[in-house]
This record gives sequence, C-alpha cells and structure tokens, in this order.
Amino acid sequence: MNKLVECVPNFSEGKDKGKINQIFNAAKKVKSVKVFELEWDKSHNRSLFTIVGAPEGVFKSVYEAIKVATKLIDMENHVGEHPRVGATDVVPFVPIGGVSMKECVALAKKLGSKVGKELKIPVYLYETAATRPDLVNLAKVRRGQYEGLKGEISKPERKPDFGPSKMHKSAGAMVIGARKYLIAYNVNLDTKDVGVAKKVASKIREKDGGLPAVKAMGFKVDGCAQVSMNLVDYEKTNVDEVYREIEKWAKRYKVGIKNSEIYGMIPLDALVRMAKVTLKAERFKGAQILENRIFE
Amino acid sequence: MNKLVECVPNFSEGKDKGKINQIFNAAKKVKSVKVFELEWDKSHNRSLFTIVGAPEGVFKSVYEAIKVATKLIDMENHVGEHPRVGATDVVPFVPIGGVSMKECVALAKKLGSKVGKELKIPVYLYETAATRPDLVNLAKVRRGQYEGLKGEISKPERKPDFGPSKMHKSAGAMVIGARKYLIAYNVNLDTKDVGVAKKVASKIREKDGGLPAVKAMGFKVDGCAQVSMNLVDYEKTNVDEVYREIEKWAKRYKVGIKNSEIYGMIPLDALVRMAKVTLKAERFKGAQILENRIFE
Repeated sequence: MNKLVECVPNFSEGKDKGKINQIFNAAKKVKSVKVFELEWDKSHNRSLFTIVGAPEGVFKSVYEAIKVATKLIDMENHVGEHPRVGATDVVPFVPIGGVSMKECVALAKKLGSKVGKELKIPVYLYETAATRPDLVNLAKVRRGQYEGLKGEISKPERKPDFGPSKMHKSAGAMVIGARKYLIAYNVNLDTKDVGVAKKVASKIREKDGGLPAVKAMGFKVDGCAQVSMNLVDYEKTNVDEVYREIEKWAKRYKVGIKNSEIYGMIPLDALVRMAKVTLKAERFKGAQILENRIFE
Repeated sequence: MNKLVECVPNFSEGKDKGKINQIFNAAKKVKSVKVFELEWDKSHNRSLFTIVGAPEGVFKSVYEAIKVATKLIDMENHVGEHPRVGATDVVPFVPIGGVSMKECVALAKKLGSKVGKELKIPVYLYETAATRPDLVNLAKVRRGQYEGLKGEISKPERKPDFGPSKMHKSAGAMVIGARKYLIAYNVNLDTKDVGVAKKVASKIREKDGGLPAVKAMGFKVDGCAQVSMNLVDYEKTNVDEVYREIEKWAKRYKVGIKNSEIYGMIPLDALVRMAKVTLKAERFKGAQILENRIFE
C-alpha cells in the first residue's frame, strides 16, 4: 500500500486573496502531492488547505508554503477572531494509509527542526508529537496568543521545542504536531424537535460519558433535528458505530433516523473498518479492494 | 483507458501448499499482468487467485496455470466440500475497465478452444459465454460433479462446447465463461448444525425466491455452519444486504451470526454502496474517499 499522509496547515491570513493564493500555490509546486480544499475566513483572518501524498512530498510541499507565509504575513499587524501565535499557526500531520502515527510524529519533529534552524522561528510540538504533557492540548500551547507569548517565551516553562526562545520578528511562533484523522458526520433525525437531537447528542458524546472520541451537538438544520459530530478517532468510534448508537437512543424518544451525511473526506480505512464491524468480518483488509491492488 | 480484464481461476487443490504455489507461480510467469490474492481452503479443497491485466496477458497467464494444474491435480483422488468437475474447475473472465462483456465472451471461447484442442479436456462455456440456455448457470453445468459427469458426458445433452466428449483421465472437465464481478462471501453461523445453514441458504438464494443475484449453499466448515455465497451482481444485492437477510432468517432458528468473510477481492464501489445503504447516506460518493482524490 502506498504511504499516505495528510497535512492541514493553518495560516494567519484570511483577507488578502493574493497572499492566500501565493501560499497555496507554493504548496502546489510539489507535483507528487495533491493540494486542495483551500478555505479562508475574513473574521477569523485565517486560511487553511489540505495536502495529501507520500510523507516526503507532503513535507516539501508544506515547507514551501511555510516559507512564503513567513515572508508575506506580519503578526505585528494581524487582527482576527481565531486564537493564533504565528504566521503559519498550526501544522498537523495525519496518518492516512500505510503510515503509522509514529512516522507522523517523526515528520512533525523533522519539520520543527528545519523551521527552527532555517527560518529562525520558535516551534512547539503538540498533540501526539508533544514532548511535555502541558503542550498536548493546542489551546494550552497557544495561551496568551501571539501577543502574550511574546512576553513569556523566554521563561523556561514556555521554551519552544525547536528554534530560538524568542519570537520571529514578523512570523511569531509555530505549532507543529501529529493527530488522527477527523471525520465530520451528521445524522438527521426523523423529527423537527431539536430537543431530541440535543438529548441524543448528550448521550453519545465522550465528555458526557458516551462513546470514545465522539464530539456531538444537536442542531436544527433545514427544519430537521440533526446530531452533528466530529469523530476524532474513527479507530475508537467509527461512523457505523455512532449511527447505531444514535438509532438506539433516538428510539427511546420514538424517533427514527431520516438519513446521514459524511461531510467532506473520509479515509478508505474507515470504510474498511466499517465493513469489518458491520459484517463481523474481522479478517477483511484494504488489500482486498481491487482498485488498491491494480494501482499499487 | 487501459483495457483491463480480471480472471479468477478456481483449482481443485486446497491442501497441498507446494502444488498450490506451483500453479500460482505459473500464472505469474507473464510479467505484464498482476497475479494476486491466492486463497485456499482445506475443507473445500480448493484454491483460487486473481489475474488482472490486458486481455492477451491475462489469457497467457491463466493458460500457464491451467497447464500446471492439469499435471498436478488428480480428480480421481479429490475429496472436498465444494462442487467441482475438474482440476481447473472454473475460469471466469470479468470486464473491469475499457473492455466489453462481448470481448470477455470472445476470450472465454478462445481459451476453451485451446484447452480442448491442446490439453484434451472437455470444456463447457457458462454464464454470458454459454451457448445453450441450460449451461448458463454454473450449478447446472456442474450437476453430478466430477463423479456424476463422468458417467453422463457421452450423452448428447451433456456434450461439451470444446474438446472430447470424454473426461480427461485425471483433470476431468473445465467450465470457462464470462460474467459480471462476483463477490464470494461466507457467513458463519453461531451453531454447529449445518441444517440451519442449509435452510437459511435456501431462504436467501435467488433460485428459491430469495434475494436477486444471490447464490447460496450451506456447509459445515471448521465445525461451524456456514452460508457460502456468490453475489453475482452486487448492484442488485450487496454484502451488507445479504448479511442482514441471513441475520433475520437465522434468528428464526434462534441462531446468531458468528462472523463473516469476504473471500478474495471486492470492488471499491461495493464498499461505497454499503456505506450508502447502512448509513442511509444517499449522497455519499466515491469521490469523498481521500485516496480516490489522490489517484484520480
């Protein structure tokens, strides 16, 4: 199987389409990877896109984008609603196929080291790549944001993992890490009563004692009660498992499932796992998919 | 688009790994095709693998394998649970891309003619390649199996399409044809009573009024009652649909499903359809699979 890594770099520029495109196009220079789904938000003053490919290609592609962002974005003049510490704010690597989390952590560290040395930007490792427990959570790494970190970066407890203990004069700091693939998944209930969706959401989400790695909220969307979810680790709870759990809880309120929607992209491995669980086919594997064998 | 044909020859040897490998390696001699997913089953005493490539390459590759199987397998000493009439039992050609069903039928006839002439093995054409209505169905072609066909092959109604009207002394007969993509799928029941598997099989198979494009039989495999199926058109009945139907019928005999097994390869499209149905996610499409975006 081909080695596949996803990277979703976030940049502190969400207004100037010219600059946003320059950063996006820099990533596209590496022809061996796919770069897509450019998104930007003016009030957040932030943009992001997705790079997918073999580890080396993704590494080169995101580094090209970081170099351009470092030149174009000045954090001294940046205003936006979203928390941020630098021009290239967050860079997560995500294992997609044929790659372990360990390899993504190694990739994060390699990128952090290069950014620290060559661009003189302080780098913090977060999530699975974190080297200290207080840096696992992204919100904690970014506390005080660009302005606050500037005054605290010389303190021992805020020492970066790579680069100088001093903010880059215009690009600030950077957070690089590795995390699991996130699936955005919505289930629409056969009722207009948003209260049912809210109750079901509270039953299934991890923080209220529900399924592991499930974040859920109840909304009313197009007149329909919707359980809107982020599955932050489909190896713990996959789309089919959460579907059946919602079905079970909704039944207690005499409500059925109208339909469901996978929002955006899903890794093939999640479908393979779904087949394994739904069909109790423990031995089923991705290599049994015809297309995987022909184009390998 | 490149012309792609799949061929899945089935051989009556599922125990002797040395012989199985010799047959597999013969097919691999043709370097222009992919030969993979060798599987074998001791109680069925049967093995199969997949060849994919351009029509000419696939033709050469499968013929090499047939030649070796003809030398190595003696049907006079063959015992196994799966119906069979010969050493190389069944050879289907399946259009995958850029090739019509008609081209696959022509390929089947060309192979049948060569096997009849050069190896002196009687050959029956089946499914889309069949020349008589009573030979379309594989089960009908194989009725009586090796032992039964031996006594009947000289009768006009059992005259083969190619080769002598007489069984090959050790290799028996062969069935060659063209068909749609077939998913081999087994569901193991939580009982040792093969009678339940046989009853469930009779409820779900098309010929007895069950699900369309489903062929099913009940076996005892590794001490477990198994519903063994061929899904001959997954666009009509897919793995998840037949799983739920079996679950429903087995319940009437107070039996559950132990596990299931997709045997060999499955097209990605079948998994996408499974997600759509199981999750009521009508709008889900293959383009949402990350890997598909990369190799498009």
